[in-house]
Amino acid sequence: MTQFMDVHHDMQGITDEQLKRVHRADLAVEKEEGVHFERAWADPESGTVYCLSEAPSAEAVRRVHERAGHAPDEIHAVPLSIW
Amino acid sequence: MTQFMDVHHDMQGITDEQLKRVHRADLAVEKEEGVHFERAWADPESGTVYCLSEAPSAEAVRRVHERAGHAPDEIHAVPLSIW
Repeated sequence: MTQFMDVHHDMQGITDEQLKRVHRADLAVEKEEGVHFERAWADPESGTVYCLSEAPSAEAVRRVHERAGHAPDEIHAVPLSIW
Repeated sequence: MTQFMDVHHDMQGITDEQLKRVHRADLAVEKEEGVHFERAWADPESGTVYCLSEAPSAEAVRRVHERAGHAPDEIHAVPLSIW
């Protein structure tokens, strides 16, 4: 399992409730792909959303987001991190 | 105080030790700007590094990174988040 950071660039105006809703949509299907979405951060002004997940592959991350209705614009494996 | 996610796009090949070193360089000067860098994630392949901080402004985040020798390419306030 590897950590991934994926990025959405088209979520201008996203609200706290909408962020929670899209996150719940990911959680509803993630187990079938072996993915876990851990955290998310949103900048409503620029429409940027960052999602941190643990997953077997970038494709698995993409499939969960696509099935939940919001394909990401970028997915990066982030094998290095500081906690 | 607001959370910020800043992004560096030019750190291809960064190692775990280098990530720790640049993070320590931020920690050494952050207090003077009222910033705290909390977490960082790196994708050595694409050279992308994400830094999560708590700060009074995006300019304060930029000043800490610049003083530590690594100006970011993007800084986004991320007032919404899921933990």
